[in-house]
Amino acid sequence: MRGEFDFIESIRRQVARSEKSKGVSLGIGDDAAVFNSKNLDLVITTDLLVEEIDFRLDWTTPRFLGHRALAVSLSDIAAMGARPRYALLSIGVPQKVWKTKFVDEFYKGFFRLAREHHVALIGGDTSRTPDRVVIDSIVIGEAKRKRVVRRSGAKAGDLIFVTGALGGAAAGLGLLRSRAKTKKTKRNSRTTDREKLLRRHLLPAPRVVWGRLLGEKTLATAMIDLSDGLSSDLAHLCRASRVGARIDSSVIPIDSSLNEARATELDALDSALHGGEDYELLFTVRPRKRNLIPLDLGGVPATLIGEITSSKNIEIVSNGRARELKPEGFQHFRRA
Amino acid sequence: MRGEFDFIESIRRQVARSEKSKGVSLGIGDDAAVFNSKNLDLVITTDLLVEEIDFRLDWTTPRFLGHRALAVSLSDIAAMGARPRYALLSIGVPQKVWKTKFVDEFYKGFFRLAREHHVALIGGDTSRTPDRVVIDSIVIGEAKRKRVVRRSGAKAGDLIFVTGALGGAAAGLGLLRSRAKTKKTKRNSRTTDREKLLRRHLLPAPRVVWGRLLGEKTLATAMIDLSDGLSSDLAHLCRASRVGARIDSSVIPIDSSLNEARATELDALDSALHGGEDYELLFTVRPRKRNLIPLDLGGVPATLIGEITSSKNIEIVSNGRARELKPEGFQHFRRA
Repeated sequence: MRGEFDFIESIRRQVARSEKSKGVSLGIGDDAAVFNSKNLDLVITTDLLVEEIDFRLDWTTPRFLGHRALAVSLSDIAAMGARPRYALLSIGVPQKVWKTKFVDEFYKGFFRLAREHHVALIGGDTSRTPDRVVIDSIVIGEAKRKRVVRRSGAKAGDLIFVTGALGGAAAGLGLLRSRAKTKKTKRNSRTTDREKLLRRHLLPAPRVVWGRLLGEKTLATAMIDLSDGLSSDLAHLCRASRVGARIDSSVIPIDSSLNEARATELDALDSALHGGEDYELLFTVRPRKRNLIPLDLGGVPATLIGEITSSKNIEIVSNGRARELKPEGFQHFRRA
Repeated sequence: MRGEFDFIESIRRQVARSEKSKGVSLGIGDDAAVFNSKNLDLVITTDLLVEEIDFRLDWTTPRFLGHRALAVSLSDIAAMGARPRYALLSIGVPQKVWKTKFVDEFYKGFFRLAREHHVALIGGDTSRTPDRVVIDSIVIGEAKRKRVVRRSGAKAGDLIFVTGALGGAAAGLGLLRSRAKTKKTKRNSRTTDREKLLRRHLLPAPRVVWGRLLGEKTLATAMIDLSDGLSSDLAHLCRASRVGARIDSSVIPIDSSLNEARATELDALDSALHGGEDYELLFTVRPRKRNLIPLDLGGVPATLIGEITSSKNIEIVSNGRARELKPEGFQHFRRA
């Protein structure tokens, strides 16, 4: 049977290539990893993914899971306006799963996304677990001094933008819940709308290029990634900035696959407003910088959905009438 | 019921004090933490602790566990010759444990040790788990450029030192296995030898001061912390440095409490050679720097136990006879 040392050795070989980026002076295989950052600000995030809570092995594939573990942390780094550089991965796997191809496949998914964004895996830990898979994904990013974008910088009058389209991930999760099979979501297969929605949930695309642009060019005054859902994450941003917001329901970008796969327009808007895990970026911009925001970056649009107000309320306007938008995204420990 | 946001808010308040150290510009409460390091090298380590594998809740207390989670990562940073500065903590807790004082007590243990070493908690993640506690502890340290001590710098002729005394943690674990009660290990109670051994296992003291000195003064050529046990960790160091070693069994520092609590001298030596989780530092020194190694630092001695050789073997000398010292520490996935 393969022991931990053999496994770490095999990962080390895979890692060697990705470590050639400047700044890493020591990767996997010592007590800790070493890196440096010249005169940059560093940002670090950690995301814990627990089997049965954050994912189910019968709803995803190990490769998708490896992608997802990295993607959620890349999204956090993007939401800081920083450039992701280094990753560490702690993974706990039960004996019966360890004996399968799970870990190899998991790392394939992880490394594929890491290569795409030039992120080097520099460390991590492995452990056995009694019966469930657990993953902690850690990503470090860099930003020029004082270019980091916080949640707290929005001011009344700032314009509110969101990247991409919303509601797809929640709809994909809904499909999985109604016993859709993950087999249908293989990469490179011809995708139907249902499959597109499954992928939105299983293979989130972190908005790394958008995040970096918004930070480097000091375009965004505040930013957050949409993990809990637009209504919740907008509330987080407003609370941190001590402002309110007004958004227009008619311009919320709704995932186009939702129209096909779901019954009503109302359901689709509901997914877009409250559905979690789209991993799009929500950001605010001073009005004078509005024209500096590109319409599209690498195929991903940004849509103006409203503006920051000096009230403490978050409102949504539909057919000319404003109503309060209450956060309905999930919190851990309240689910299930 | 307390939700995640309330909990994070309460942690944030506790953290505010510890964040006043220079270098942290944003702590808990955004998508990621921000820090910077001027012109230093940074080291980062992550340690995954899984209930039933790495700890048992009926053998320890939440406070001890909080201490331990940070201690094992501080030990890794010390083993790099670096100074620990920042910590992140991902913690997954089942619903039934979340309702208890567990998390508060856990953080008390964590913060007590963090304060002792001036380490600031700058981020983390929380999740629910189906039924077991899982913790990922991440610590970042700093070292002056090129002062980091790796495992790979030992050369033939270097002297081998170890801090503190060995075998106590393994003996403590042995006592727990034979149904000793953790109630007996309350802090400030008068300690017997049995209780000292339990503490060696449950409340490891990372050798932060030693590690930093050995790095800053460029005294150590290679270093590792003793987590798997002397025989295994010496083998790791020798393999990384492509050297051999010869150590003298008569000078191995054995935990004094072992004499009282265990039957035979042979058992005690066995614990010291192969028992894991002492979290002492094993390091190598050029002979000309031997006199620069203090005998004692804050009550923790360092003992010369042997020397690095140009062979590929690791030998132990007892009563004038050399025999091969085989690694007998544990590997994950081979235990239990």
